Amino acid sequence: MTDDVREPIRVGVLGARGRVGTEVCRAVDAAEDLELVAMVDQGDWLFNVSDAGAQVVVDFTTPDVVMDNLHWCVDQGIHAVVGTTGFTPQRFDRVRSWLAHKPEVGVLVAPNFGIGAVLMMQFAARAARYFDSVEIIEQHHPRKLDAPSGTAIHTAKLVAEARAAAGLGAMPDATKDEVPGARGAEIDGVRVHSVRSAGLVAHQEVLFGTTGETLTIRHDSLDRASFMPGVLLGVRSIASRPGLTIGLDALLED
Amino acid sequence: MTDDVREPIRVGVLGARGRVGTEVCRAVDAAEDLELVAMVDQGDWLFNVSDAGAQVVVDFTTPDVVMDNLHWCVDQGIHAVVGTTGFTPQRFDRVRSWLAHKPEVGVLVAPNFGIGAVLMMQFAARAARYFDSVEIIEQHHPRKLDAPSGTAIHTAKLVAEARAAAGLGAMPDATKDEVPGARGAEIDGVRVHSVRSAGLVAHQEVLFGTTGETLTIRHDSLDRASFMPGVLLGVRSIASRPGLTIGLDALLED
Amino acid sequence: MTDDVREPIRVGVLGARGRVGTEVCRAVDAAEDLELVAMVDQGDWLFNVSDAGAQVVVDFTTPDVVMDNLHWCVDQGIHAVVGTTGFTPQRFDRVRSWLAHKPEVGVLVAPNFGIGAVLMMQFAARAARYFDSVEIIEQHHPRKLDAPSGTAIHTAKLVAEARAAAGLGAMPDATKDEVPGARGAEIDGVRVHSVRSAGLVAHQEVLFGTTGETLTIRHDSLDRASFMPGVLLGVRSIASRPGLTIGLDALLED
Amino acid sequence: MTDDVREPIRVGVLGARGRVGTEVCRAVDAAEDLELVAMVDQGDWLFNVSDAGAQVVVDFTTPDVVMDNLHWCVDQGIHAVVGTTGFTPQRFDRVRSWLAHKPEVGVLVAPNFGIGAVLMMQFAARAARYFDSVEIIEQHHPRKLDAPSGTAIHTAKLVAEARAAAGLGAMPDATKDEVPGARGAEIDGVRVHSVRSAGLVAHQEVLFGTTGETLTIRHDSLDRASFMPGVLLGVRSIASRPGLTIGLDALLED
Repeated sequence: MTDDVREPIRVGVLGARGRVGTEVCRAVDAAEDLELVAMVDQGDWLFNVSDAGAQVVVDFTTPDVVMDNLHWCVDQGIHAVVGTTGFTPQRFDRVRSWLAHKPEVGVLVAPNFGIGAVLMMQFAARAARYFDSVEIIEQHHPRKLDAPSGTAIHTAKLVAEARAAAGLGAMPDATKDEVPGARGAEIDGVRVHSVRSAGLVAHQEVLFGTTGETLTIRHDSLDRASFMPGVLLGVRSIASRPGLTIGLDALLED
Repeated sequence: MTDDVREPIRVGVLGARGRVGTEVCRAVDAAEDLELVAMVDQGDWLFNVSDAGAQVVVDFTTPDVVMDNLHWCVDQGIHAVVGTTGFTPQRFDRVRSWLAHKPEVGVLVAPNFGIGAVLMMQFAARAARYFDSVEIIEQHHPRKLDAPSGTAIHTAKLVAEARAAAGLGAMPDATKDEVPGARGAEIDGVRVHSVRSAGLVAHQEVLFGTTGETLTIRHDSLDRASFMPGVLLGVRSIASRPGLTIGLDALLED
Repeated sequence: MTDDVREPIRVGVLGARGRVGTEVCRAVDAAEDLELVAMVDQGDWLFNVSDAGAQVVVDFTTPDVVMDNLHWCVDQGIHAVVGTTGFTPQRFDRVRSWLAHKPEVGVLVAPNFGIGAVLMMQFAARAARYFDSVEIIEQHHPRKLDAPSGTAIHTAKLVAEARAAAGLGAMPDATKDEVPGARGAEIDGVRVHSVRSAGLVAHQEVLFGTTGETLTIRHDSLDRASFMPGVLLGVRSIASRPGLTIGLDALLED
Repeated sequence: MTDDVREPIRVGVLGARGRVGTEVCRAVDAAEDLELVAMVDQGDWLFNVSDAGAQVVVDFTTPDVVMDNLHWCVDQGIHAVVGTTGFTPQRFDRVRSWLAHKPEVGVLVAPNFGIGAVLMMQFAARAARYFDSVEIIEQHHPRKLDAPSGTAIHTAKLVAEARAAAGLGAMPDATKDEVPGARGAEIDGVRVHSVRSAGLVAHQEVLFGTTGETLTIRHDSLDRASFMPGVLLGVRSIASRPGLTIGLDALLED
């Protein structure tokens, strides 16, 4: 931090009374370099946000209102950090067309604000080319409906792409005699194991191995609060990233 | 140790020039409370062992000679710790019949001298009744032919028995949408996951979970030397365990 | 469970509107083999409990009322499971004197109802005699004031006692050149390492090692709900344990 | 792999009869895309290497001969991968002066060829800026003389630099009541814990934490063979990296 006396960033929150929005307000309020200047929800005027001089808006609302919110923010020259779902390629195109007229405004739309999960996937993709073997073990609470988890499938695909790009072939595996399922699910050639147990929340381990050594990257997520550091990172970074940014990845690659 | 000056136990090794026997000789030699008094292999006289005053014999030989060795030991009043394979119920009956005439002699025959693995299984069986969920993750080098490992299957059966005895029903698992294999192999209702990777040796994790907490028991075996502490435990214990003892378990339950 | 149609155990909760009491009520209510028949707190009549036919009472109240509650329960022939703090040897003596007149009544007083933590300590004490080395790594949130944790210190003492009883000497450690603190705190000869980090809750790992293998026992506690299975275990067991039982340990040793 | 029929790289090994050199020969021989064309040790002619048409030389010799070897390789236009110790800034300057006359030749000198350890350090430095807390736990066999390990100290310094560059202050830690050593050694403000136990080889865990989540990067090294993949990576990469490269890091950053 080169300048301790710089002004705090002025932040408005849309969807401020929602489950996630409430936590965003609390997190912004607690950060010394941010100032919470407007909390807006259904029935409130958006102009409260501009009147309060907000420089960045955080939007955790609903798919039916988020596009109007965004259009208004871009028009007002306010940067936006968006966690609302429901974005399609068409929606992204419309956001880009608005931004064409306001080239200094930055908009970040991210499906997942968990910094740890995003870093895990980035590191896994980086490590993949150097190891003979890789397997993924994800562990979740027993109320989860899908196996493997979306994050595990996404990680497997990233790892498989990196292996292919590096010219790596099939992994060594002499298994001849398998009880069905023991070796897990195969996602693009990568074995993924899904553990379900009471007492777990959301965990994933990516295990890489080569002669005489293993490298393990593990992420443990204990509650929804784990998204807040990613939201704050977005708020702090978006002013210096004009245009549309999709996904937290880009902010973690500098 | 209540008596530091007590005499070391005098030990003879049969199969002393074999792969395991060599390590047994080295381990006995290195132990301060044991004295290596005879090393015997094919072509040597068994009487070297009794002439040297051995109190305990360790036998890592072959199925075709082990019964003769054992008969001779019992006759001589020498205790025996046996890791040689090929024992059947019939063979155990014959050993018992010899011991009937020598009630003070102890014989231990064990298929697995790994203390850590045996304790892991004991603890898993103990913990099983108190948790809603249990899953097993075993990890081995990629040259292994079977999945799951024998130890994992054995652990699953012990855990399933303990759950049944405690009246526990099926574990919670809401999985609806599964890529085949993701949830592992089912062994008596217990999910077992087999990871295979370069850089691994032999590892197993038993994960227990209930509301808000998990208990994990993990065993890592890095080389064959991991059997030696179990062999030495047998040597130190067998004189006080007359009769036939099968498996290291019994020695670890006191 | 040999008899699926047996009657549920009738349970009353004292301190039912307190933080823990509320969770006890919810847990009892959710258990198929238990029936929540009375919820009593400050200002309510204790006789509600006996009128409702409660067989077992759970008491999470305060040190100033718990003795009166207990005396009344014993008089009424109602078993009690107590998590209230403030018990002294004198208080235990008084409870025993009441129970002398009601030999069929059982009372359990436990400072810690976490089954996983209690099993971890039991297993650690059991394993200690078989391994050359043991170290403890405990990990907690950064708001914790003491290091090591009370559980880690207690575990270290149990392990040290078990090693001493088995005649084990000092652990191997060739460290010559140590940055102060690197090797952790020494508790009765056992090294304990305290990790503090945002994102952690309460975790402990006991690592045992001998030639070529390690055995690790790990406990992860994610929230207060982790005490409920221990409370329910107490409720289900206390009728068959007349007299005073101190600590959950005894119930986990059968 | 864009071209499956490309010619194998022709490799000569200097120090071929040494402990590491022997393993290098075995690893080169086993790799399908490499051909072992010359094995040279004390008393052999270096010209065997050029006569055999080696394109890359691997040097695991001694500080007193390595500079002569390198000078000769550069003169001959042969790329070199060097694991021999004893390099100083002066020695690096001399290598650079030789390479000035042979701009197409590549020389890699690396103190550590363990890919997993190098990646662990890179990932740790990358992740450091995003988390409130970071602690390092390294675990080694009990014959190790220093605590913390050199790798752990190096990792701590990298992490501390990254935190400082990101403007992060002290980590949260409310510890008031500490048994001396419990919180580990402090290296540039980062807590490092050194575990020593029989049964361990060389392991390190870097734990990052922020609100509600942790990210763990773990490296397990089981034997010296773990250096071979790094050596082979050097052999495969050096032809496309003219000039002097110091450390495996550079090859893992592309």
